[in-house]
Amino acid sequence: VGELIFIGLGLHDGTDISLKGLNAIKKSNDVFAEFYTAKLTGTDMKTLEKVLGTSIWVLTRKEVEEGTIVLEAAQKGRVAFLCAGDPMFATTHVDLMLRARHNSIRTVIIHGPSISTSAPSLLGLQHYKFGRTVTVVFPKENYAPESYYDQVAENMKAGLHTLVLLDIDADHDRLMTANEAMKLLEDIEKRNKMGVIKDDTIICVVGRAGSDDPTVRAGYFKDMKKEDFGPPHHSIVIPGKLHFMEAEALVGLAGAPKKIIDMAK
Amino acid sequence: VGELIFIGLGLHDGTDISLKGLNAIKKSNDVFAEFYTAKLTGTDMKTLEKVLGTSIWVLTRKEVEEGTIVLEAAQKGRVAFLCAGDPMFATTHVDLMLRARHNSIRTVIIHGPSISTSAPSLLGLQHYKFGRTVTVVFPKENYAPESYYDQVAENMKAGLHTLVLLDIDADHDRLMTANEAMKLLEDIEKRNKMGVIKDDTIICVVGRAGSDDPTVRAGYFKDMKKEDFGPPHHSIVIPGKLHFMEAEALVGLAGAPKKIIDMAK
Repeated sequence: VGELIFIGLGLHDGTDISLKGLNAIKKSNDVFAEFYTAKLTGTDMKTLEKVLGTSIWVLTRKEVEEGTIVLEAAQKGRVAFLCAGDPMFATTHVDLMLRARHNSIRTVIIHGPSISTSAPSLLGLQHYKFGRTVTVVFPKENYAPESYYDQVAENMKAGLHTLVLLDIDADHDRLMTANEAMKLLEDIEKRNKMGVIKDDTIICVVGRAGSDDPTVRAGYFKDMKKEDFGPPHHSIVIPGKLHFMEAEALVGLAGAPKKIIDMAK
Repeated sequence: VGELIFIGLGLHDGTDISLKGLNAIKKSNDVFAEFYTAKLTGTDMKTLEKVLGTSIWVLTRKEVEEGTIVLEAAQKGRVAFLCAGDPMFATTHVDLMLRARHNSIRTVIIHGPSISTSAPSLLGLQHYKFGRTVTVVFPKENYAPESYYDQVAENMKAGLHTLVLLDIDADHDRLMTANEAMKLLEDIEKRNKMGVIKDDTIICVVGRAGSDDPTVRAGYFKDMKKEDFGPPHHSIVIPGKLHFMEAEALVGLAGAPKKIIDMAK
């Protein structure tokens, strides 16, 4: 009987892989990966194969969605399926897992660090105070959703922080920067005027989480939108009501203006 | 100059530690850990020390809160500070990090898998559809907060899922079980009657996330409250509005009644 093991490589460069994940790769007959739903920006395939001690077959979007290659291999032996972050963030992986189960293939998930906990951690913000996570997407000619703006507004109203993930355009190998996302939010603000993004709104940016030199910044929107956060991967956090301790963390860890500590008191 | 490296050991037994974390431990002069804010239920200290290849000084709550031992060691050399999950979940770790910075100690965070992404992943639920996370706490004589109930209600109203974390009573080495938490929620429901917990409410339980045999279950409250989920660690997810694909996942991965797929259509 076959086995399909989903392994999260975590953030940045693949060295976030767990000891358990490394052992599973060693015991696998085939090692696949997909990097179109999320990318590791701090490595290349050659380095990653060296770090993980295995050769890797990188699947295209079509191959993952069809699933045939992976499922056929997993019916014959033990197969590792690698991806960035935690392995079940993408619906297409859940779909693949369900299809494996329907084919009587045993499935295992080996977790990895995810941006959804790492970004709050780097900023020193309390995890339980986050509302719904949103994604700012690249606007396309016939598809420019703005629901993420409304969802940030909802969270703010409830005093909750929002993790704002940024789109990946896999076809053009392009990751949205925090500055691009701020521009999109500002444009929607100009039309909708719900007060989500004002000059004095505190905006936090985390860049290259999981690397040795992550960018961890917080400041007023008017200043942050002009700042250079280095190469992506970037994420944004728009804080809701800050606890005193969180304000201290944003000042101490992310260089936020000291004034926010008094405001949180 | 000293260095303080916070390392997340992830879930269950410490084998979730990352390659990066293992390398950092090797280079550290002292290795501390705390297990009162979160526990690894699938291992013991002797096994953990063997897995990590180091001896570990486990700190008491008082020693972590005072911070003196850790900060003095980190002023002299490279110090690893281990904990379950992701390292910045507990406020007291953020506090320790800020104090290290004030003492010109370099700080590093090495992330680990967290229950807040692992539980949704195991159930195949979409991460971005989760609202605020809540914790059900052991009621004490003079302190029996019920705000977690209201917060589940808020999330439900917005169609969002709720991750319900369960309390740890470190003094008595006791972890709340899913059944205990369901009983507490049911008791509050009887008084507040907001319809958060009804007989036919879908409840999901994840047990021992990160282990080789995690419990992944979903079903009606009336059935789930009688079920045995094995030894803790347990977490609960109370789903909001289910997408068709999520309903399929709860049926396929967690044994939920097939009826919920039709309801999600």
